[in-house]
Amino acid sequence: MELVVYLAGQIHDNDWRDEIRNRSRDLNLPITFVGPMENHDRSDQIGEEIYGEQLNKILVDDAASDFNNLRTEVLLEKSDIVIACFGEKYKQWNTAMDASTAISKNKPLIVIRPESLVHPLKEIDNKANVVCETPEQAVKALSYIFETE
Amino acid sequence: MELVVYLAGQIHDNDWRDEIRNRSRDLNLPITFVGPMENHDRSDQIGEEIYGEQLNKILVDDAASDFNNLRTEVLLEKSDIVIACFGEKYKQWNTAMDASTAISKNKPLIVIRPESLVHPLKEIDNKANVVCETPEQAVKALSYIFETE
Amino acid sequence: MELVVYLAGQIHDNDWRDEIRNRSRDLNLPITFVGPMENHDRSDQIGEEIYGEQLNKILVDDAASDFNNLRTEVLLEKSDIVIACFGEKYKQWNTAMDASTAISKNKPLIVIRPESLVHPLKEIDNKANVVCETPEQAVKALSYIFETE
Amino acid sequence: MELVVYLAGQIHDNDWRDEIRNRSRDLNLPITFVGPMENHDRSDQIGEEIYGEQLNKILVDDAASDFNNLRTEVLLEKSDIVIACFGEKYKQWNTAMDASTAISKNKPLIVIRPESLVHPLKEIDNKANVVCETPEQAVKALSYIFETE
Amino acid sequence: MELVVYLAGQIHDNDWRDEIRNRSRDLNLPITFVGPMENHDRSDQIGEEIYGEQLNKILVDDAASDFNNLRTEVLLEKSDIVIACFGEKYKQWNTAMDASTAISKNKPLIVIRPESLVHPLKEIDNKANVVCETPEQAVKALSYIFETE
Amino acid sequence: MELVVYLAGQIHDNDWRDEIRNRSRDLNLPITFVGPMENHDRSDQIGEEIYGEQLNKILVDDAASDFNNLRTEVLLEKSDIVIACFGEKYKQWNTAMDASTAISKNKPLIVIRPESLVHPLKEIDNKANVVCETPEQAVKALSYIFETE
Amino acid sequence: MELVVYLAGQIHDNDWRDEIRNRSRDLNLPITFVGPMENHDRSDQIGEEIYGEQLNKILVDDAASDFNNLRTEVLLEKSDIVIACFGEKYKQWNTAMDASTAISKNKPLIVIRPESLVHPLKEIDNKANVVCETPEQAVKALSYIFETE
Amino acid sequence: MELVVYLAGQIHDNDWRDEIRNRSRDLNLPITFVGPMENHDRSDQIGEEIYGEQLNKILVDDAASDFNNLRTEVLLEKSDIVIACFGEKYKQWNTAMDASTAISKNKPLIVIRPESLVHPLKEIDNKANVVCETPEQAVKALSYIFETE
Repeated sequence: MELVVYLAGQIHDNDWRDEIRNRSRDLNLPITFVGPMENHDRSDQIGEEIYGEQLNKILVDDAASDFNNLRTEVLLEKSDIVIACFGEKYKQWNTAMDASTAISKNKPLIVIRPESLVHPLKEIDNKANVVCETPEQAVKALSYIFETE
Repeated sequence: MELVVYLAGQIHDNDWRDEIRNRSRDLNLPITFVGPMENHDRSDQIGEEIYGEQLNKILVDDAASDFNNLRTEVLLEKSDIVIACFGEKYKQWNTAMDASTAISKNKPLIVIRPESLVHPLKEIDNKANVVCETPEQAVKALSYIFETE
Repeated sequence: MELVVYLAGQIHDNDWRDEIRNRSRDLNLPITFVGPMENHDRSDQIGEEIYGEQLNKILVDDAASDFNNLRTEVLLEKSDIVIACFGEKYKQWNTAMDASTAISKNKPLIVIRPESLVHPLKEIDNKANVVCETPEQAVKALSYIFETE
Repeated sequence: MELVVYLAGQIHDNDWRDEIRNRSRDLNLPITFVGPMENHDRSDQIGEEIYGEQLNKILVDDAASDFNNLRTEVLLEKSDIVIACFGEKYKQWNTAMDASTAISKNKPLIVIRPESLVHPLKEIDNKANVVCETPEQAVKALSYIFETE
Repeated sequence: MELVVYLAGQIHDNDWRDEIRNRSRDLNLPITFVGPMENHDRSDQIGEEIYGEQLNKILVDDAASDFNNLRTEVLLEKSDIVIACFGEKYKQWNTAMDASTAISKNKPLIVIRPESLVHPLKEIDNKANVVCETPEQAVKALSYIFETE
Repeated sequence: MELVVYLAGQIHDNDWRDEIRNRSRDLNLPITFVGPMENHDRSDQIGEEIYGEQLNKILVDDAASDFNNLRTEVLLEKSDIVIACFGEKYKQWNTAMDASTAISKNKPLIVIRPESLVHPLKEIDNKANVVCETPEQAVKALSYIFETE
Repeated sequence: MELVVYLAGQIHDNDWRDEIRNRSRDLNLPITFVGPMENHDRSDQIGEEIYGEQLNKILVDDAASDFNNLRTEVLLEKSDIVIACFGEKYKQWNTAMDASTAISKNKPLIVIRPESLVHPLKEIDNKANVVCETPEQAVKALSYIFETE
Repeated sequence: MELVVYLAGQIHDNDWRDEIRNRSRDLNLPITFVGPMENHDRSDQIGEEIYGEQLNKILVDDAASDFNNLRTEVLLEKSDIVIACFGEKYKQWNTAMDASTAISKNKPLIVIRPESLVHPLKEIDNKANVVCETPEQAVKALSYIFETE
């Protein structure tokens, strides 16, 4: 049995994604990881890249969101589990949106966040299946699904 | 035909909620407004108020989120439309969660946000039915549903 | 038992809507009729009316569709039956969209169309519950739901 | 991860379909394309071909729609994404129906249409994930889902 | 709390429906009963009554089924419970269809049938909530839902 | 806005139900409470009461469960919230079934249980919105949904 | 792309099933056919075969239906299309149940029936995608889904 | 065609699971079996194993349930059939929860239980597809799904 896991979260740095992928590979977990475009600049510019030049910055953002939402919807629908990683920087409303979409679609949700974010994340945490502080803990949770003893 | 509208957003101040309610009442719109507990302190303390004293601050937050999520789930399920208001202060991940829940449940979504938040909100905005900058615009959108000419 | 019926179709003229409403009232059918904004100019300008002036005609149209889709989604969700009326003029892709939404949501669909449109409408007709040529026939279909002998 | 994409649109000419398939193959995208019968005459005659001769032209059309709808329902249900292409000729209500079915089933939708159709398509465009003007743009959107940087 | 109950079954005679309605009224049960057109001739002729004369008997039947299915879909969707009554005469495939629709939509199902039909109905009976032999038993089942001691 | 609350739990004694109903009435909460037959003997005998004498005790139980499940399905479907009360006596698998049905249908769940049952109930508790120890706490949770400050 | 097709219908003789399977194999259609147990005696006796001897014939039937319904539910859920074949003998309420389940689950339905059954099947036929008179026609309908010109 | 079967039930001993797996392997059934962690101590301690030391026993249990529920949700969602085994020891509310989840998600349910538990399990049994007393019977039920004569 193979699982697909969507890695939701900001894309300014992707170390946490690499750690999850590497640890899972080291454990030979039968998991395919998917997620958003991890090149932040390209994610912001994809609207103009495909549609062509836009009239102003609002339209540049709106155009980019067309393609980012298309990608997220397709890949999240294919996923069995969503991991949403929150950090101390950035607004990360996309991450909250993806986490909530997972909950609404009854796809199990693992949240990773530092203890400093307990208060503002308390309602999302409350709905998640697992709330941990490190990618290592998230991978242990994934591994536990496959373990037999 | 009567509609129920959920007013999602931060509860540090509730002026925007009052404005929506007042403007709708002035227009005699047949709408019942629901939403989260608007007393911020009570919202934070409701866990200990009902469950009793908790061992640490994390558990205080977790306890409070039980009751806030219960309330939101019940009232959002009863709603025909969700209005989600984002401002420049606070994390507002709850607001993003409620907006995303509305989208996932195919409940129409109206977002209110200042232009300064276009970039971080672009994917949520892209999924909303209507994205405006003032409560007045949101009420006009509600009113348009009932108008006949 | 009261029913809500959504009257989907072009809004350049609304005689067919008036005929359905009048005939239903004459029969005392316990039906509330809803539908799109019937003032065509206002429907096209509602985007700028609420959002303010737009940069070009494409954005004017995009803005208007925000409010028209909001209205349609809310009212169609409340409906028990959808009547979709096609005529020989105009593109009427909105009408096809609403008819198809009704089918996908398992809401019974009544199509009204002239015989001249049999060929291009054949796949939509094939999915409708009832396909008739006049508003009078559509009202008879509604009335039959309530009749006891 | 492989995706299935349904190519909705008129079948009088299929150049746009060929272009999408060819460009995707050139990019080695792991996509299976499905869609309606592309032989227009056969699509119109399939009812009599299988059921036998019909009494009049209306019944010929009704018979054909049985098989075309069967095919569309089966293949669209298997699809992860729907591309709906509108052109300046023909009624294309089938295309609007398929596009709307995609939206209602929460399957991401890419619309291709010339700028001349902005006004009559504005409500469908508004609900689509991506609205572009050429098959090339649509393929870039598909490709973006698989790209990693 | 009021309930709506759909009375599915043949319409050649309606004594069983009258008995259910009368017994429920005698018990003051807060139930609205709905169901198919109970005038058998009209049910068979409703297609030509509304659409006009048809070319042959197959088309007469097909036309009638448009309106009968419209009625059933609307009223069954409004129902909280379906009672399906099978007797020893007639094909009664409509009754089986309505019973199965109830099961598929998770609407509780009460079957009434004589013991002589146990064998051919065994799979439908097996899925029903309650299987009884008389209308009186069915009404007792309805009454039990409201009783408090 | 009125809510319907289903009171799931054993029916050997119903003091906890009375306490919830009384406290809610004292607070004037706009809630209709529903639940299983509270007369335990009648609940066990309802099968023979309606169907007549059964061949053995297994069939007596099977017959009774027909009517108890019918009642529960109808009333739980009408409910906005489920309260499931577990005590130290009895198997209470019905209560677990109703609690789980609530979760699966995305109906908010309030569990009442003594601290002594934390271990065996830990997975159900983990999925509930609110887990408390007294009926008084459950009523406070209900009341909080309606409070405005 | 492979499809799974459920062959619903009576099992007293299975010639029609063999014909569909043989014709499909001859056309190399990528289809897996599933359906009920085709050994009629075994289907009737499977309850006692697994549960052991039953007290009376009603319980024998009820026991058998447990296993037949289990099988049907599992295999029909796996299916992309349902073919329901009605003949002039037998009650065939199971066939009507399976056909209706297919409709309710939005799985395309092909009905095979002789012209003599038009009248009693008119409402089921009206909901089917395709209604034909021979297995050969049904296979042509399946084949059309895969054909490209 | 391959099936996935979830083996719900207590994990203090797993002989019944071994018997089902062994008998199915002996029959070459194309079935993948999944289920909870079968090492009871590890299941109870998994919360502290991943999250680290907890403040008290309630929190230890709550932490463990995070991971056990994550595992169950993922694997049960992948399953085509659920087998729920009840015995005379332990509370087994998890088993009732999993059985009820299967019912609510329309996944066929096989219950295994000794005759001594008929009374307290009567409502769950009543909703199951198959209720048997031994693992051998459950495997026969699985095998019957694949048999052709």
